Amino acid sequence: MTAYTATVTVRLKHGVLDPEAETTQRALERLGFELEDLRSADRFEIDLEAESAESARERASEMAERLLANPTIHDFDVEVVDR
Amino acid sequence: MTAYTATVTVRLKHGVLDPEAETTQRALERLGFELEDLRSADRFEIDLEAESAESARERASEMAERLLANPTIHDFDVEVVDR
Repeated sequence: MTAYTATVTVRLKHGVLDPEAETTQRALERLGFELEDLRSADRFEIDLEAESAESARERASEMAERLLANPTIHDFDVEVVDR
Repeated sequence: MTAYTATVTVRLKHGVLDPEAETTQRALERLGFELEDLRSADRFEIDLEAESAESARERASEMAERLLANPTIHDFDVEVVDR
């Protein structure tokens, strides 16, 4: 078994409204920053042990499908690194 | 001017309690997943135009310092890519 860290990034699907991101963008603009767009996402860093990086990735994807992401409104991606 | 996307990742500092992450970890364990630790973070993807990647990075760092992160409890890092 090897120790891995899987990073799951959960984003709203294209077209889903994100009022929090809009508010944040407007607050930055009010502070004088120039930006074209701002998107927010949740990131989960999961330490786990697995036989291989591939198996760690599969396990983290299953966690995203079952709990971390809502498939109706979210997309997610998984990155795995040795720890 | 070049179009960049700056990704700001905002994490709780080591030692700051994260009840949301603990709850998520326990929920995953209750579903039968084995994991050693789970940390959550906020991720902001900011589209902006700048003279150089260095200048885009500085601007995104200033956004984090002034609004996106709370220096008392958060650390942040910034990654910049061409868009």
